[in-house]
Amino acid sequence: MFYVVGLGLGDVKDITVKGLEIVKKCDRVYLEAYTSILIDDIIDDMKSFYGKDIIIADREMVESASDVILHNADVEDVALLVVGDPYGATTHTDLVLRARQSNIPTKVVHNASILNAAGCCGLQLYNFGETVSIPFWTESWKPDSFYDKIVENKSRGLHTLCLLDIQVKEPTLESLTKKTRQYLPPRFMSVSQAAQQLVEITKTKPGLSTADLAVGIARVGSETQHIVATSLSNMTETDMGKPLHSLIIVGNIHPVESEFLAQYSTQELTG
Amino acid sequence: MFYVVGLGLGDVKDITVKGLEIVKKCDRVYLEAYTSILIDDIIDDMKSFYGKDIIIADREMVESASDVILHNADVEDVALLVVGDPYGATTHTDLVLRARQSNIPTKVVHNASILNAAGCCGLQLYNFGETVSIPFWTESWKPDSFYDKIVENKSRGLHTLCLLDIQVKEPTLESLTKKTRQYLPPRFMSVSQAAQQLVEITKTKPGLSTADLAVGIARVGSETQHIVATSLSNMTETDMGKPLHSLIIVGNIHPVESEFLAQYSTQELTG
Repeated sequence: MFYVVGLGLGDVKDITVKGLEIVKKCDRVYLEAYTSILIDDIIDDMKSFYGKDIIIADREMVESASDVILHNADVEDVALLVVGDPYGATTHTDLVLRARQSNIPTKVVHNASILNAAGCCGLQLYNFGETVSIPFWTESWKPDSFYDKIVENKSRGLHTLCLLDIQVKEPTLESLTKKTRQYLPPRFMSVSQAAQQLVEITKTKPGLSTADLAVGIARVGSETQHIVATSLSNMTETDMGKPLHSLIIVGNIHPVESEFLAQYSTQELTG
Repeated sequence: MFYVVGLGLGDVKDITVKGLEIVKKCDRVYLEAYTSILIDDIIDDMKSFYGKDIIIADREMVESASDVILHNADVEDVALLVVGDPYGATTHTDLVLRARQSNIPTKVVHNASILNAAGCCGLQLYNFGETVSIPFWTESWKPDSFYDKIVENKSRGLHTLCLLDIQVKEPTLESLTKKTRQYLPPRFMSVSQAAQQLVEITKTKPGLSTADLAVGIARVGSETQHIVATSLSNMTETDMGKPLHSLIIVGNIHPVESEFLAQYSTQELTG
């Protein structure tokens, strides 16, 4: 059997009881290690909590070497652990499909993802529109299609959850042509960086203003969870500490949302 | 401490390890019993699995008698168990706020909800627009604002997750004026009923067609999970068995989505 087990928001004890039972009985356990997790902080905790060795599956392995992961999964039990929910990324969906096409039985264990945990700030999940991703800009590459989607959501009164870029195991430009790849240190976009990019776009495109209400959420579900509600302009200078961060651009705000959000705000909420 | 613990999709073992540890140490444990759960099927399993007595908290208690639930929670540990994720319903958000206003420390344990588990059909979660709710129609009350939202999502190429009505502990009309309330048997809308209401609206409103691709998902995350992809028209006659059901109206479909969804379809996928 091939299992894909959601780990939830990142603490080792966020795994479900069903998920833990599966991990404990598996012959091989892989940890998908590039879509969101802070591996170094958690891997040793996981090994001792599960009482299992864990094989790190990087992007190349999950995307190109699925036969390694699925090897013998028709007769053995193999688990791929995924931060958040298993269906949060296309690659996991794809791996489940490859398994089924090889007549390997599959089972998915769901868990919380930032898509529902974003409700922690008090904004109601059914008032959110399409989720967007904000990529790191470079000197020569400054895409802004996410901005248009935020504006469209806002025009319908809806909030937008912005997932912020993560770059883990990105090869250095210099090593791309060499035999041995070298990697850049991992980077995680902060809410302030995301807000800066959005403010930059407001200078040339209509739809958002620097006074618009934004909500930063950091390390959701952990002991150090932190939430700040303030203007997009103030958010550019707000330090929310360690990753992971997400940013919400608020649409029309309802009284019950406003009352809850006020706990995290230093200004009047009129987003 | 006042804990709100998400139970995930409904099996007793869908609780997280963190959630289970909390439940086991609490002085009182309430189970919120009206926004989604099939109580009778699960309550005895829960009691024996947790080794705890569980107090059923119905709508009246959660909405109007929050002081009963929060009683002594500043010195005792009290948990409210909620199917799905704790922030899936306004009332839970409200209860957390009441607790904090009474200086009761709170902690929320996230879990999967249908909002992310809907990805089980292979449609990517970031291609979904605003979620809608489809209520049971009566002879004299046939709201259709959800239809307009589906059409707006579709015009942007986005899928729509439709949450289907649940009526638990609805008083009978006759008993409304009497001292002792009597209750209707619980009702859960099926995908075929939802599709029928949508087809009915297409007769007078443009935007959707009976040939549009729809995906029915039933009992997501359970051993009997069932997924069907077919036209809205066929969906009106599709029996997906026991509750809970949800319906997805497909927007623009991407190749990887189409390939996955084809497992559940008897027709070509061009939604």
